[in-house]
Amino acid sequence: MTTKRIAFLGPEASFTHLATKSLFQEDVLVPIRTIPECIEAVANGEVDIAVVPLENALEGTVPLTIDYLFHEAELFVTAELISPIEQHLMVHPSNEERWEEMTTVYSHPHALAQCHKYLYYRFGKVPLEQSSSTAAAAKYVSENEDLCIAAIGNTSAATEYGLKIVEHNIHDFHFNHTRFFVISKKNDCIVRDGHTDQVKTTVMITLPKDDRSGALHQVLSVFAWRQLNLSKIESRPLKTGLGQYFFIIDVLEDEKKPMMIGAIEELKSLGCGVKSLGSYYTYETKNEAIRS
Amino acid sequence: MTTKRIAFLGPEASFTHLATKSLFQEDVLVPIRTIPECIEAVANGEVDIAVVPLENALEGTVPLTIDYLFHEAELFVTAELISPIEQHLMVHPSNEERWEEMTTVYSHPHALAQCHKYLYYRFGKVPLEQSSSTAAAAKYVSENEDLCIAAIGNTSAATEYGLKIVEHNIHDFHFNHTRFFVISKKNDCIVRDGHTDQVKTTVMITLPKDDRSGALHQVLSVFAWRQLNLSKIESRPLKTGLGQYFFIIDVLEDEKKPMMIGAIEELKSLGCGVKSLGSYYTYETKNEAIRS
Repeated sequence: MTTKRIAFLGPEASFTHLATKSLFQEDVLVPIRTIPECIEAVANGEVDIAVVPLENALEGTVPLTIDYLFHEAELFVTAELISPIEQHLMVHPSNEERWEEMTTVYSHPHALAQCHKYLYYRFGKVPLEQSSSTAAAAKYVSENEDLCIAAIGNTSAATEYGLKIVEHNIHDFHFNHTRFFVISKKNDCIVRDGHTDQVKTTVMITLPKDDRSGALHQVLSVFAWRQLNLSKIESRPLKTGLGQYFFIIDVLEDEKKPMMIGAIEELKSLGCGVKSLGSYYTYETKNEAIRS
Repeated sequence: MTTKRIAFLGPEASFTHLATKSLFQEDVLVPIRTIPECIEAVANGEVDIAVVPLENALEGTVPLTIDYLFHEAELFVTAELISPIEQHLMVHPSNEERWEEMTTVYSHPHALAQCHKYLYYRFGKVPLEQSSSTAAAAKYVSENEDLCIAAIGNTSAATEYGLKIVEHNIHDFHFNHTRFFVISKKNDCIVRDGHTDQVKTTVMITLPKDDRSGALHQVLSVFAWRQLNLSKIESRPLKTGLGQYFFIIDVLEDEKKPMMIGAIEELKSLGCGVKSLGSYYTYETKNEAIRS
């Protein structure tokens, strides 16, 4: 196995970084500041692979990832990573004693949303400020010792930026996980130790142009009568006007199996646009592993 | 018609404010800083109605709105507003001459995403900062004359905060619109001049607990055989774990019609959870109107 260049949504110590380290221990990891730039780095050949967040169990799909894969790039998913998400409140060590007097809380919008009830009921009047990632929020707090402000993020961000965690696990719902896509120019499913048994295929579908009533029902019928299990269906705007969507469907089957080949051919015959992102395995990260 | 108190996602001059003014000319408009607080203000009886963004033609659903209506509140949709969205780049008048040297661009994450290509290709190296609304970004720029920074927002924000628009219509895709929900404790459809002909019902559905294969297909069959047209289907996480969703379906029919009553009864018999947000009309705002 040769060493590869792996882009991830940075900065260092972001949740994406932790997930990326769990699958790519031997490679060169390159932090990139936005999702579109991560995806473009693979498309341009600057890196071999990019790891980007796809979906959080609480906040849902990360629209930039899905939209960029649909509208902008001819790329494939070669694996998915699933990591547990635990959010903690952290301050600069100089402010540890008076943290409850904090004047502003910084974090990624998803992290702020994941801790909405905690923040609302404990600190209803404290303004929230959005940052580009939880790690960026931690970095900002570490650079502003004179301000009594707090960040929400993971333990690794606290370690990386020398912050003190003053409240652990402030997220409102437990069992929170994030899915990450491992993206490449080549449709090469990554097969390593520790993957789950179930192979999955992600397909993006546009409905026939005549937009007849029940078209989505017809699409689902193609999968239903073949007993192909869907683990997810999601709609995203086509960007051509309100009410026009494409659909992202995860099917629990390999795209090379006869039933899947038949289903995709049938969808095309119905006048649907179909783009398969490939078939891939899932790798689950444990908290203990990502903390080490 | 008595005067009502109408909350909207503020601050003044936000896109939500413009849309709200178009339907409620005679009422007291109350700016509220977050979507959950707007919705809670209706639930608590502090206001009679709240207007919140639901969906943008480019960025898709606003998750906070959908999630709050599903998880937290027993409220109804009494109307929907659709407004065109045009984004402009604006700076403090003192920086008009040297605007291309701007060091940071501020706006709401959706507005930044809507202008992604423009920003990326014209100003690839300029950092982007997220603010809670386009109007908040304009306000910040107006208060920081000494910084050469820019905001992205609407013409009304430029007027309100005394900024100079240096590039018009920098959004990447045209025909961009946003849908807003007009929310109340009472299931009273708002009927005024100028509504579109088509009545719409929004229904939130959870699948049966046994999670059998093809359950969503079965749900859509309930509507399909009755020739009930769906204008939208969207999935959102149930917040109980990855892969568990509820569905938001817009049906082009009144919930009081026999076919709809039958469909909802049948869904319940299948073991689905069904929550109707009510039936409502659409009011479209013209740009000329919202600029006046």
